[in-house]
Amino acid sequence: MSDQLKDKCGVFGIFGHKEAAYLTYLGLYALQHRGEESAGIVTSDGKKMRAFRGMGHVQDVFDGNQLEQLTGDRAIGHVRYSTTGSSNIKNAQPIIVDYSRGEVAIGHNGNLVNADILRSELEAYGSIFQTTTDSEIIIHLMAKPSNRNVEEGVVDALSRVKGAYSAVLLTNQFLIGARDPQGFRPLWIGKKDGAYLLASETCAFDMMDADLIREVEPGEVVIISAQGLKSLKVSSQGTRLAHCIFEHVYFARPDSKIFGESVHLVRQRLGQELAKEHPVDADLVIPVPDSGSSAALGYSRQSGIPLEYGIIRNHYVGRTFIQPSQGLRDFKVRVKFNFVKEVLKGRRLVVVDDSIVRGTTSKIRVKRLRQAGAKEVHLRISCPPHRFPCAYGIDFPTKEELIANKYNTEEIRKYFECDSVGYLSLEGMLKCVSFPKENYCTACWSGQYPVAFQRLNKYYAEKCR
Amino acid sequence: MSDQLKDKCGVFGIFGHKEAAYLTYLGLYALQHRGEESAGIVTSDGKKMRAFRGMGHVQDVFDGNQLEQLTGDRAIGHVRYSTTGSSNIKNAQPIIVDYSRGEVAIGHNGNLVNADILRSELEAYGSIFQTTTDSEIIIHLMAKPSNRNVEEGVVDALSRVKGAYSAVLLTNQFLIGARDPQGFRPLWIGKKDGAYLLASETCAFDMMDADLIREVEPGEVVIISAQGLKSLKVSSQGTRLAHCIFEHVYFARPDSKIFGESVHLVRQRLGQELAKEHPVDADLVIPVPDSGSSAALGYSRQSGIPLEYGIIRNHYVGRTFIQPSQGLRDFKVRVKFNFVKEVLKGRRLVVVDDSIVRGTTSKIRVKRLRQAGAKEVHLRISCPPHRFPCAYGIDFPTKEELIANKYNTEEIRKYFECDSVGYLSLEGMLKCVSFPKENYCTACWSGQYPVAFQRLNKYYAEKCR
Amino acid sequence: MSDQLKDKCGVFGIFGHKEAAYLTYLGLYALQHRGEESAGIVTSDGKKMRAFRGMGHVQDVFDGNQLEQLTGDRAIGHVRYSTTGSSNIKNAQPIIVDYSRGEVAIGHNGNLVNADILRSELEAYGSIFQTTTDSEIIIHLMAKPSNRNVEEGVVDALSRVKGAYSAVLLTNQFLIGARDPQGFRPLWIGKKDGAYLLASETCAFDMMDADLIREVEPGEVVIISAQGLKSLKVSSQGTRLAHCIFEHVYFARPDSKIFGESVHLVRQRLGQELAKEHPVDADLVIPVPDSGSSAALGYSRQSGIPLEYGIIRNHYVGRTFIQPSQGLRDFKVRVKFNFVKEVLKGRRLVVVDDSIVRGTTSKIRVKRLRQAGAKEVHLRISCPPHRFPCAYGIDFPTKEELIANKYNTEEIRKYFECDSVGYLSLEGMLKCVSFPKENYCTACWSGQYPVAFQRLNKYYAEKCR
Amino acid sequence: MSDQLKDKCGVFGIFGHKEAAYLTYLGLYALQHRGEESAGIVTSDGKKMRAFRGMGHVQDVFDGNQLEQLTGDRAIGHVRYSTTGSSNIKNAQPIIVDYSRGEVAIGHNGNLVNADILRSELEAYGSIFQTTTDSEIIIHLMAKPSNRNVEEGVVDALSRVKGAYSAVLLTNQFLIGARDPQGFRPLWIGKKDGAYLLASETCAFDMMDADLIREVEPGEVVIISAQGLKSLKVSSQGTRLAHCIFEHVYFARPDSKIFGESVHLVRQRLGQELAKEHPVDADLVIPVPDSGSSAALGYSRQSGIPLEYGIIRNHYVGRTFIQPSQGLRDFKVRVKFNFVKEVLKGRRLVVVDDSIVRGTTSKIRVKRLRQAGAKEVHLRISCPPHRFPCAYGIDFPTKEELIANKYNTEEIRKYFECDSVGYLSLEGMLKCVSFPKENYCTACWSGQYPVAFQRLNKYYAEKCR
Repeated sequence: MSDQLKDKCGVFGIFGHKEAAYLTYLGLYALQHRGEESAGIVTSDGKKMRAFRGMGHVQDVFDGNQLEQLTGDRAIGHVRYSTTGSSNIKNAQPIIVDYSRGEVAIGHNGNLVNADILRSELEAYGSIFQTTTDSEIIIHLMAKPSNRNVEEGVVDALSRVKGAYSAVLLTNQFLIGARDPQGFRPLWIGKKDGAYLLASETCAFDMMDADLIREVEPGEVVIISAQGLKSLKVSSQGTRLAHCIFEHVYFARPDSKIFGESVHLVRQRLGQELAKEHPVDADLVIPVPDSGSSAALGYSRQSGIPLEYGIIRNHYVGRTFIQPSQGLRDFKVRVKFNFVKEVLKGRRLVVVDDSIVRGTTSKIRVKRLRQAGAKEVHLRISCPPHRFPCAYGIDFPTKEELIANKYNTEEIRKYFECDSVGYLSLEGMLKCVSFPKENYCTACWSGQYPVAFQRLNKYYAEKCR
Repeated sequence: MSDQLKDKCGVFGIFGHKEAAYLTYLGLYALQHRGEESAGIVTSDGKKMRAFRGMGHVQDVFDGNQLEQLTGDRAIGHVRYSTTGSSNIKNAQPIIVDYSRGEVAIGHNGNLVNADILRSELEAYGSIFQTTTDSEIIIHLMAKPSNRNVEEGVVDALSRVKGAYSAVLLTNQFLIGARDPQGFRPLWIGKKDGAYLLASETCAFDMMDADLIREVEPGEVVIISAQGLKSLKVSSQGTRLAHCIFEHVYFARPDSKIFGESVHLVRQRLGQELAKEHPVDADLVIPVPDSGSSAALGYSRQSGIPLEYGIIRNHYVGRTFIQPSQGLRDFKVRVKFNFVKEVLKGRRLVVVDDSIVRGTTSKIRVKRLRQAGAKEVHLRISCPPHRFPCAYGIDFPTKEELIANKYNTEEIRKYFECDSVGYLSLEGMLKCVSFPKENYCTACWSGQYPVAFQRLNKYYAEKCR
Repeated sequence: MSDQLKDKCGVFGIFGHKEAAYLTYLGLYALQHRGEESAGIVTSDGKKMRAFRGMGHVQDVFDGNQLEQLTGDRAIGHVRYSTTGSSNIKNAQPIIVDYSRGEVAIGHNGNLVNADILRSELEAYGSIFQTTTDSEIIIHLMAKPSNRNVEEGVVDALSRVKGAYSAVLLTNQFLIGARDPQGFRPLWIGKKDGAYLLASETCAFDMMDADLIREVEPGEVVIISAQGLKSLKVSSQGTRLAHCIFEHVYFARPDSKIFGESVHLVRQRLGQELAKEHPVDADLVIPVPDSGSSAALGYSRQSGIPLEYGIIRNHYVGRTFIQPSQGLRDFKVRVKFNFVKEVLKGRRLVVVDDSIVRGTTSKIRVKRLRQAGAKEVHLRISCPPHRFPCAYGIDFPTKEELIANKYNTEEIRKYFECDSVGYLSLEGMLKCVSFPKENYCTACWSGQYPVAFQRLNKYYAEKCR
Repeated sequence: MSDQLKDKCGVFGIFGHKEAAYLTYLGLYALQHRGEESAGIVTSDGKKMRAFRGMGHVQDVFDGNQLEQLTGDRAIGHVRYSTTGSSNIKNAQPIIVDYSRGEVAIGHNGNLVNADILRSELEAYGSIFQTTTDSEIIIHLMAKPSNRNVEEGVVDALSRVKGAYSAVLLTNQFLIGARDPQGFRPLWIGKKDGAYLLASETCAFDMMDADLIREVEPGEVVIISAQGLKSLKVSSQGTRLAHCIFEHVYFARPDSKIFGESVHLVRQRLGQELAKEHPVDADLVIPVPDSGSSAALGYSRQSGIPLEYGIIRNHYVGRTFIQPSQGLRDFKVRVKFNFVKEVLKGRRLVVVDDSIVRGTTSKIRVKRLRQAGAKEVHLRISCPPHRFPCAYGIDFPTKEELIANKYNTEEIRKYFECDSVGYLSLEGMLKCVSFPKENYCTACWSGQYPVAFQRLNKYYAEKCR
């Protein structure tokens, strides 16, 4: 439906705070952009767990009564994006199960590339599955009778899975955070009032005025208990680092830090680099709000072309909007954005956006800018053209739907009916981040997948529904 | 809270009807009295399952949209009573899982007496549990890799469980009905428009104008597919029949047939027998509506004392009633019943009810009859005093709370402040049903449990929450 | 839709009780059968009013929070039946307005026969109307500047209206109850903990263990204030008493007293008289539950034919039931009633019901009794054939739809395909009540309307929608 | 609660379009910022009106079913802000009434200064009031029997009221738009597919791709019917123009035109003027999103100090957010905004906002900027200090709560603990708009009220609750 790429999930955890459920609620609220379809919290008082999950935004799922009933000083929470529609409560996380060592709950961000193989193996040995989540696979692996204790179970389970995961687990004794050896997705450690916190992005800590401690390292498993934080390592033989750079380009909140640096500042540098690679003689730099704002600022600074707010975003956009019974053209763009004629009329515009997926929205946007009187429209995109699907937790359309697989840049320009199109190069993009370029995953642009994968059709279909 | 015993569940199944989901909805609606806390339907179109479950009455859980989305010509449904409160959606049934042979869904009525032992064993081998239902245990047993196919899996699983079950299972190919070898709970086969039906009580078939075929036999597993109905047997070595006679006394609907005969007519005979065992010189027979109505009619006929409607039931009673902030005495009885002074004043009354559990409600009722001017109040109960909890699927208070374990009959009379109390004898009760008396379970009165049981505290606590 | 006649409203009032809102809630709950479509409560603390109204049953409209916000020691409440559908919240009562003497709220049961004339007059003088209720007219009349005070305003307003009303009014100083000079609809005075109560039926007082004082007399206006109860009279020149006898036959709850006597006992006498007028040689008397229960008991006693429960009512019937997408025949009867084959098979039945309106439901019921094996079906109706619409507050179908206007008794018998039909005669019915027969309104059977009426089409259409 | 000034209402109207209800829905959606508490639509098919109103945002109030039932080719709609809480549905608009000339509906934006006097007069003549809105007063005046027709009624009514109004009225024949002679609030005429439109702001027309025709002139009444648009004039003797300049500063959407010019461009000029009046040596210009965005851009351009996004707004802010049970400091600011440490640390900041009311939010914001490491914080406000309440339709706190009435600028600086504070001067502000300065209302800053007013306490309290 929407022409935006979506991250699959956000996670949060806390150990040792009397307001554990409420702070988890706040944390999930800050991470809402990582998953708008379901939200859940599991708490423990050291003896027994309590859980509540529901479809919708964090604010809609929880009310005060539920938070009150989620007693205990330790908790994990999860927000999830799912393409399968509103009724699929069964896949809402955290999942909570009983096994031989008691209760365990898990929330997971990422995508395992060997999920289907593991699942088939487990089923062959008699396992049953009530969800289609990777989380349930991890728990089945943890529950193997050969594991001597919870820690060993977690490390053993994570040693068998491949792909991207930033996971939080809760038992009645432990809060556990784990990140895959490639470090695809972010996961941070914080502290508030003496209690340890875990979160996908640092904005969750800012929300509750907590201190930022450090990132969970790639391949690290942190076991938090009344005895403090203990660090274990998952075997990472033969792996390389592979941070998802698209988290910087689009997913993460600009006020977060991920992979060691400020998202807003990376985006601003992307805009500056874009101005260097694709300069143009124009009157105004127009950001596509809000995803293109930081890059547009960078473009404006580098080029000296003044920034202007010619596209205004409607802040009331929600998911319940009623579609017109009879076609109102370009409806979705119209609901979300308005165009300021007095600003745009007769001007030569550089329009800065973060990325283009199918291209449908961009096409309409150019048309409406023309209707508002723009003299020239130059599209500038702060990452390279997307050509390959993500195997590590981002929801993509099929390869055929990606506009960059249908057209070359000049054809895209014609299709959009704009005056020029400029994508930031892969090289240029990698200049804007701090780690060496081989530390990042660029698969969705380059097709070079850092972890090999193979899917059985059966579950792939299920997941992609 | 309530002073009534509650059955745990009702089940329904259908195979080969284009309106499978809607007829399941109707069937559950007819079985609503067997479980008011959650309702669920799973359908299959032969390839893929669809499910919807929710907390509350059937009418509140489902709306037209959901029924439309439950496509397919085969379905099972379940209503459930649970003491654990409204938030416990995770135990709502039918449960639906993936295992090595594909999808399977199950709805279950009854209680396994070796559930905890089986569960501990399964966990020791690495199984994980997402609910506390017996249904999940049955599915784990079915999924054992040594079973060659679905039928063998079901029969093997049921051979390992002990206790009471009337279960319906659905795979994409089969509708399966199964009843324990003792025949504790009812389960019937019906037919409508050529499609096979399964239901806990015959009133579900009346609802949709279906034909009644026969009962699923104790120990029988019926496998319904496009090839028709196939009957298998679970090993029943060393077992005896044990129909729950309290289904006749109280649980089942008076317009149903169970264990081969009309519930209303059995109840009427119980009233007649009660009049023979406990005659009294009185002016009027007053039924406690609606559970005492049939027995009161029998008592009136046998005794020649005229029936009168001195207690009127409020038909709008629902579960959302707001409690008074400041004590209004006898509130719950008051909301549910009113007393017709003009009928009761100065009269000697025989008040006929089906059973007494804790006795709190009966005590208030006698008091209010006195306030309405009754000259004498003689309580007559159409079954013996309840002294033992049920192990086979009925929710009981603790043994200590049962009034018959605290007082003898004369003490109960004093406690109720009535003029006499008469319980029907065990012998008398067994005279009113058609099968030989050793075919019935009378454990809740006699303490003679037809299937031995042992519980691990861990899960018992969970179930009895 | 439904084939039952419906009363328009029930009212309740209280003055001087710290739990005024909660007791009003209880009272409305007891009066729920008088209006299932909307419910409302207005309270006053002597200075300021608070109100809450909503569509639906009392239990669904109010929750604990709302009752808490309805502060004050005086209140009125209203339940309303309306044929106009769920969205018509604007006509929900009580209505609350500001006028020159401050705030006033009103709830009304009945129907004014000169409403349209008064409304046209008022509009001609510049009045505006926000509802189509008679209550709003009464308030406009009260607000006339020539009235010196509230009491005079009420008496003056009521002197100008004609027809049926039992109304409760609340100002910040007074609780007022008023009943038309004919006494069409019931209205009672009660007392609880020293506080005065008003209610349409006495069952509302039983609900809260209140004392019954007396009926508000026809033509009386009772003004209740901190100074106690004051009684005024509306001019009743040229009027006669005209109690609605159909309240006894069908509307009122059997546990209520109205017009001086027990509803249940009147109904029982109607059944006895029916047995005298229309005896038949049969095996069983079968009540149509619950409206025919009391009369069936009378018929059985008088005739000596044993009562039996052959028709069982489903207690879960609610308004949200999903209709079948493809026709299931006789659906509405099927959802509401089941038929006990074992009781009915091969028997000659006397089926006792309170009244027949269109006849559609009765026809289906006879058919289903036949399907259940009944040998003979003799319908007995505890009132005469309905031939005329009510002008005084009962919702009727058009004259043409009344079956007794289409067929004579023999034709009705043929239409129903039953063995005999017997209606109680007008004379017989009037024998069963205590006042002289000229004190009752029998217009819906006899066509003799005690108060002349004339309607302007404009508003009649609105009201009857 | 909130520290923002709020406009009372937004209005929309349409005549002669087959999708009238849907376009009104779209229009209200675009005007949502003018009233978030209730929304309503009334339609007419030329014979009969249909209405739906509810509490909450436009998207939450309406669903597809309701829009479908709102049939007809003419409609008016209204969004309303109210401080009285969610239950006050009775004041939701449009109001719809019956009077001698048929049905009329009205939606109103503004505030009448003689409302209480008119209301008292009307009550003295016997009028009753069901709401506390000014709209109901206008309709009472229209309904006076001396008016010969609808047009005369409207003009007569508007000639008697004083103060601010931009109103839309609907009868079954006419759509009427009216604006007070001072022109306090905006009201525009548009056209789509041949149908006339009315709307508070032009962004409503952009939403549906409609053409902008012109503003309704101050003192003009436009009567739109099947015969086209007719223009009448309300007497405006002794009045002057008084456009609310605060609509430009804060209320209106930046993508709207009001009072003849672009809101965004006016705001940008305000920022430029602010830079001239209050220059400062600093590193970055930081907008308070989103209300300070346009002015910050102007400040940055004029001063040459680079713009930066150091404050990030959370887009998921809704009204259902659960408050912390135990104090989390500065909670409300924290939920809404986050601060980008990497941008702010060690920098000298110019923070640009549109206005300061109580100052509580600004104080917290400065504190959090300091915590994020800001070296200097210079507040710049794009209008003068607010010292006087609005009498013409904007919701203000009491005079005592306005920070500019408690402190002078230096004291404000100290209270905020910032390095400098600069308010734009009245002169400077008036330079940024196009009409002569005497055409604007500046009462909230200058205390010079263009229309005299007097309030009776009784209704003032009600309205200001």
